Amino acid sequence: MPACSRTPLEEEVLEAIRPTPLQLKLLGSLYRLLESKLSSCARLHGLDAVVEAEGSYAKGTLTRDKWELDVFLLVRGASREWIASQGERLLRECLEGLPVEARYAEHPYVTVRVMGMEADVVIAPLVSKPGEGGTGVERTPFHTRWVRRALRGNPCLADDIRLFKSFLKGIGAYGAEVRVGGFSGLLAEILVVYHGGFRRLIEAASRWRPGVYVDPLGIGDEELLRRRYPESPIIVPDPVDPGRNAAASVTRRKLASLVLAANAYLEAPCRLYYHPYSTLEPPPYRPDPRRILAVELRGDYSGLARDALWGRLSRMASWLSRGLSRAGFGILRWEVWTDESSRALIALELESPELPALELAEGPPAWEPARALRFTAKRAGESMPVAIDDEGRLKALRPRRHTTARSAAEHLLGSGQAPLPRGTASARVVEPGDPGLGEAVRLLAEATPRWPYCLAR
Amino acid sequence: MPACSRTPLEEEVLEAIRPTPLQLKLLGSLYRLLESKLSSCARLHGLDAVVEAEGSYAKGTLTRDKWELDVFLLVRGASREWIASQGERLLRECLEGLPVEARYAEHPYVTVRVMGMEADVVIAPLVSKPGEGGTGVERTPFHTRWVRRALRGNPCLADDIRLFKSFLKGIGAYGAEVRVGGFSGLLAEILVVYHGGFRRLIEAASRWRPGVYVDPLGIGDEELLRRRYPESPIIVPDPVDPGRNAAASVTRRKLASLVLAANAYLEAPCRLYYHPYSTLEPPPYRPDPRRILAVELRGDYSGLARDALWGRLSRMASWLSRGLSRAGFGILRWEVWTDESSRALIALELESPELPALELAEGPPAWEPARALRFTAKRAGESMPVAIDDEGRLKALRPRRHTTARSAAEHLLGSGQAPLPRGTASARVVEPGDPGLGEAVRLLAEATPRWPYCLAR
Repeated sequence: MPACSRTPLEEEVLEAIRPTPLQLKLLGSLYRLLESKLSSCARLHGLDAVVEAEGSYAKGTLTRDKWELDVFLLVRGASREWIASQGERLLRECLEGLPVEARYAEHPYVTVRVMGMEADVVIAPLVSKPGEGGTGVERTPFHTRWVRRALRGNPCLADDIRLFKSFLKGIGAYGAEVRVGGFSGLLAEILVVYHGGFRRLIEAASRWRPGVYVDPLGIGDEELLRRRYPESPIIVPDPVDPGRNAAASVTRRKLASLVLAANAYLEAPCRLYYHPYSTLEPPPYRPDPRRILAVELRGDYSGLARDALWGRLSRMASWLSRGLSRAGFGILRWEVWTDESSRALIALELESPELPALELAEGPPAWEPARALRFTAKRAGESMPVAIDDEGRLKALRPRRHTTARSAAEHLLGSGQAPLPRGTASARVVEPGDPGLGEAVRLLAEATPRWPYCLAR
Repeated sequence: MPACSRTPLEEEVLEAIRPTPLQLKLLGSLYRLLESKLSSCARLHGLDAVVEAEGSYAKGTLTRDKWELDVFLLVRGASREWIASQGERLLRECLEGLPVEARYAEHPYVTVRVMGMEADVVIAPLVSKPGEGGTGVERTPFHTRWVRRALRGNPCLADDIRLFKSFLKGIGAYGAEVRVGGFSGLLAEILVVYHGGFRRLIEAASRWRPGVYVDPLGIGDEELLRRRYPESPIIVPDPVDPGRNAAASVTRRKLASLVLAANAYLEAPCRLYYHPYSTLEPPPYRPDPRRILAVELRGDYSGLARDALWGRLSRMASWLSRGLSRAGFGILRWEVWTDESSRALIALELESPELPALELAEGPPAWEPARALRFTAKRAGESMPVAIDDEGRLKALRPRRHTTARSAAEHLLGSGQAPLPRGTASARVVEPGDPGLGEAVRLLAEATPRWPYCLAR
């Protein structure tokens, strides 16, 4: 193996995150089992089909924490409609005898769990060009082939991809699902390949700002992509389908996490940026439960797609956070969690759970008579004084509507405006200091990034 | 007397504020005594001099609360220098046998107090045109003559002037001294004359905004005046010296008081806008001493001009207020008081005297790496978490420097930056809730305008 441009820290991390021979052997056995079951079943049904491994396992970019396979059953001539109506039933039949789970999703797939390993088995049309099948998933085999070809030329890249994935996971930005809003495994691979290595990518990322367009190979049409993805803070043309943004899942917040962490890593590298080191020590900060407010939801969430449920929970948390801010309660951050079936939790970390009985209200200037008179009359009705500041603007103290975050949150929930996930039966405020806040405290503690402490050392 | 355009309320107020016959008789006796003493004394010194009554008494615009005279000794051919060096001595000599006080001022004058009456006796050059003497006070006789002439034509105006002065005093905007920053008696007279009456003036004032130029008779050069008085929120050309702004003393805050009160009066007239009704009832609002912070100053202030001392106290209060605001303490308002010799008091009304131990800090966005890293490292050093909001901006909780207003105020006083009045020997913070806050509470209660409660009735 040639010398790859890495630091001793990075080599040490790689030793810990490369998959073990046993892991690869067991995943290989599972793959061969699924491959033979799916092939013979397809033949039995008279289908012209190919079984292929996809994803990190197939591309050789797997990390040690992933005991996962992606297996595709690619059927020639299968229409979108046929797959949507028959796909899941066929997969279940082919995999009979194995523990199979399915969950509602845009595209039919099943999950097989064996001996701690997990295989997602997907059925898709066999096409000759990406985008031909019209469902999206048929692009996956082309991605697998593109990455394999790219890695063949540069033996450092596979490990650099592992390093970058572990970095993303360590800073909480790994995953395209709505729950994370971060970088997919494929996007991590594309970025490392585009930039020619981990270090060069981190250096580039340290200078990114929203609106960044990453296409060092010049394969995309920037104007077209910007028009198609006006909300995307980062655009990366998909190498097998350059009219598509491979970074469409990345939120502004997670782009900011990467930019900040990249800068910090260049200044103060340490193991805490990398998963699993980021989780090995106990959280360095446990928020005081007296400053936490939670909302506990119960209901039936089994009928919702995962992304829809997490998306709705985030919307709900963001709505609550804005409402509490308007009521005067400073919000540091919020996190959401759900078991994806019957429970969900929104945890908010507050500046303070209580506010003084009176609040300073900024009124209009005296030279907006209609507003100024209304403001003055209201305060007089409350027996409170009106003052005029040096600029001629009215100021007053007024009784605060909600002096506790609990009261403000209950008022918001009772307003009938809360964007609750469909299926919610009850929503309960758990007030600051309540002994039942343990889960919310853990959720916030776990979400606190560890790596900033490398800067303070 | 012709019918003047007034409401029954206004006629009722006038009954209470016109001077009484006894008051005019006593003031007349005092004037004649001073006139004869000054005239014979000037003759004795071989001076070519005239003695004149000036001010409200002379113009017939006096109100019942003013037992005051202005008497001018006008000396032909007297230079500015001669008056500055010899004026006060001469006045004292001429008024020997009467109780005379003097205080340092730009221009020499003495005050005679007899039987509850007060006469300011001023020495000035006798000139043929205002502005000729170069000291300012020699304009006064011209003002007296201008007002007397203007009132001759319209018998309603003198009472309308009384009404407007009483209105200004009732809303706390009467007086050109720095302590008030409001409208002088002369300015009140000019405005009523310019607008042709009280009601029309109030209607005009209800539409004023900063930058207003009031010259219905078209006597001034607007461009010149705006250039000369760039900071003045209101410009009113002086009828006897149109290059001068007769409203130069009016602050933005007091202009705002008049605009707001004028609008409120047109909507809900009542006696509380007028002095002395504004002071007859007990204050409708007494601030809670737990929300008051005061600074008590002691020293020797006898060497300072009145305006300089009050101006400095206001600067000091405003500086404290800004400093406390920066530390997170909301300030509704402040008031200052001094006995003008050895004590002064600054009283601030707070939203709350205490703040939570942690404060929410807004950091830079992640894409300003230098600032973002500094912010992150600092918070990590404090073992506090850094969060990134949806916009990519950093947020954090940090230990608050001052959790009590007392501590913040003491820190400010100890900084060596406080703009203390010259002569101050000690400055002491009286903390919220202290039993010694009685004077500060009274000061704030008295300064609370009563008239807004007319809007709430």
